[in-house]
Amino acid sequence: MKKGAAEVGIWDEQAGVGMSGAFSIGVDLGGTNLRVAAYSGGTDFLETILLPTRLAAGRERVVSDICEAIDALAQRHNGQRKLAGIGIGTPGPLELPRGVLRNPPNLPGWDGFPLRSAITAKLNRGVRLESDANNAALAEQCLGAGLRYGVSTLCMLTLGTGVGSGLIFRGQVWNGVTGMGGEAGHMIVQDQGGEPCGCGGSGCLEQYASAKAVLRMARERLGEEAPASAHDVALLARAGDARACGIFDAVGHSLAVALTGLINTLNMPLYLLGGGLCDAWDLFSPEMFRELHLRSYIYRLTEPSELEPERLEEKKTYILRAQLGPAAGLLGACLLGFQESSSMGRVGI
Amino acid sequence: MKKGAAEVGIWDEQAGVGMSGAFSIGVDLGGTNLRVAAYSGGTDFLETILLPTRLAAGRERVVSDICEAIDALAQRHNGQRKLAGIGIGTPGPLELPRGVLRNPPNLPGWDGFPLRSAITAKLNRGVRLESDANNAALAEQCLGAGLRYGVSTLCMLTLGTGVGSGLIFRGQVWNGVTGMGGEAGHMIVQDQGGEPCGCGGSGCLEQYASAKAVLRMARERLGEEAPASAHDVALLARAGDARACGIFDAVGHSLAVALTGLINTLNMPLYLLGGGLCDAWDLFSPEMFRELHLRSYIYRLTEPSELEPERLEEKKTYILRAQLGPAAGLLGACLLGFQESSSMGRVGI
Repeated sequence: MKKGAAEVGIWDEQAGVGMSGAFSIGVDLGGTNLRVAAYSGGTDFLETILLPTRLAAGRERVVSDICEAIDALAQRHNGQRKLAGIGIGTPGPLELPRGVLRNPPNLPGWDGFPLRSAITAKLNRGVRLESDANNAALAEQCLGAGLRYGVSTLCMLTLGTGVGSGLIFRGQVWNGVTGMGGEAGHMIVQDQGGEPCGCGGSGCLEQYASAKAVLRMARERLGEEAPASAHDVALLARAGDARACGIFDAVGHSLAVALTGLINTLNMPLYLLGGGLCDAWDLFSPEMFRELHLRSYIYRLTEPSELEPERLEEKKTYILRAQLGPAAGLLGACLLGFQESSSMGRVGI
Repeated sequence: MKKGAAEVGIWDEQAGVGMSGAFSIGVDLGGTNLRVAAYSGGTDFLETILLPTRLAAGRERVVSDICEAIDALAQRHNGQRKLAGIGIGTPGPLELPRGVLRNPPNLPGWDGFPLRSAITAKLNRGVRLESDANNAALAEQCLGAGLRYGVSTLCMLTLGTGVGSGLIFRGQVWNGVTGMGGEAGHMIVQDQGGEPCGCGGSGCLEQYASAKAVLRMARERLGEEAPASAHDVALLARAGDARACGIFDAVGHSLAVALTGLINTLNMPLYLLGGGLCDAWDLFSPEMFRELHLRSYIYRLTEPSELEPERLEEKKTYILRAQLGPAAGLLGACLLGFQESSSMGRVGI
């Protein structure tokens, strides 16, 4: 297992020190917030612009907001440093290399929108596009758990409002044949009678291991006593409410079913769980590990002696919390900006 | 999508013509049969030796049988042609690069056996080891569907007595961190109350989409009328028996649940189904495609206009029958023999 950041080719000497004299701009386009940052290395930004995503004003307005923020950062930082490139993260699914959105649940009405060419035309320069979950995975590999533990191949699941995922093979995002690689949130974990999912299917992981899923289960199990946030459901569980505890057992169980599929098929060294729901790690992870031990023989054969070690043993399968927090997606977009200008190819088909 | 065979680097000019003057030896070690072949390219062998796998006589006896067959073939063909290398395929799971078997269900008592070093020591030369399902996938990519359609990235599921699988990324087998990559037969497709599986888990794909699974379902649904082979269950279904038809619907359904996970996560261009149960393709594939359309949004977004086309459209997801038949595993072992001597690296971690 090699150092991750070195493989991305944007670092000079050591992790955390950016390419000297260069900076990138990253954009994290969410359904609620639009975040744009200038970045030159490490896990901090040179400057961040935070705006609401004005979906109601139309796609062109959002593209203008993105481009104006990019222009502002480019002008302010393009003196001493050289702009290496621009990376954009959007909710998936995304059709690459055309850079077209395909029916993204968090950007209603954007199906078929050629986001990359719209931004490129307005900026008059190339940008690199990637799904937000893939960017978060890239950042974790380069700057977070991948860097800390020296792992360049990993799978990251982001347990937020929904469940996003990204696969990194040898330091590079796996995009798949149409750019939609890494939608493990839509693995089926409940075959019969599963919850309908926003993707059009049913029984998807996202319906059992997201903040939205915790709230739904809370309504089902607690009725009018159900708290209004996943965070409050966790507090209730920590206070000893058996029904609330059962919800997090269900989260852990569903994660184990999906992870069994991923581990048995991919046999990667590291699976990271990130996103806001991981604040309830203490509540859902015991059931997750218990069930995983029972159901995945590859996990049993490669189970580590310590679940949260200082260093990773070789030939083991680790499931750890992600390290970068909510900035992971924006950091990944900034890393993508550095990749835009590098000669490094992507994992192709 | 590039030509597959070219990427493996063993062909001179065109598909089907082996490296001039060289040959390899491949071994396909199964729980029942041991097959050893000399090979110089194409889809035919120079010579094949077929022996029973004498499990009862002990592991050392089986290793001797393997090595004696290799020696015989090496001597007979090592005149005009040069032996490029030796490839071995075994039932998984397999710990690589150490070449140690890890509790293989089809080779009882072989857990922990260092098969590669045992063979290497006896032959006094290196051999390359791989799981049989990965070898079959490699052969399909180089010489079968991958060659015909020009696809170098694919997933193959072998529906035989059990369900094996192999992932090929850009012409190379994905081994995973411990060599156990590609055990999609043990993705969970039935979360609650699933059939116990030989892997120690329950509800695995193998329990619903293998010849053994068809026989179990036939006993459950037909009682004493149940035929003694999956082939006969298929004949009964084709004769219009609704209960037998329901068995193949269950096979198709389970394949769709697993394929939804694979397609949504990996977004590969091609998924191949091989193995003896594919003789019932006409019986299980309609339900498989119907359910897949319902449950996988990535499949819906990339559904091809023709299910069995002459040429593959770009940016689509195809699920096709494998082309090489039961020789795929042995052909893959022979290809592995050619790789042993080449400079080509493997997909690492």
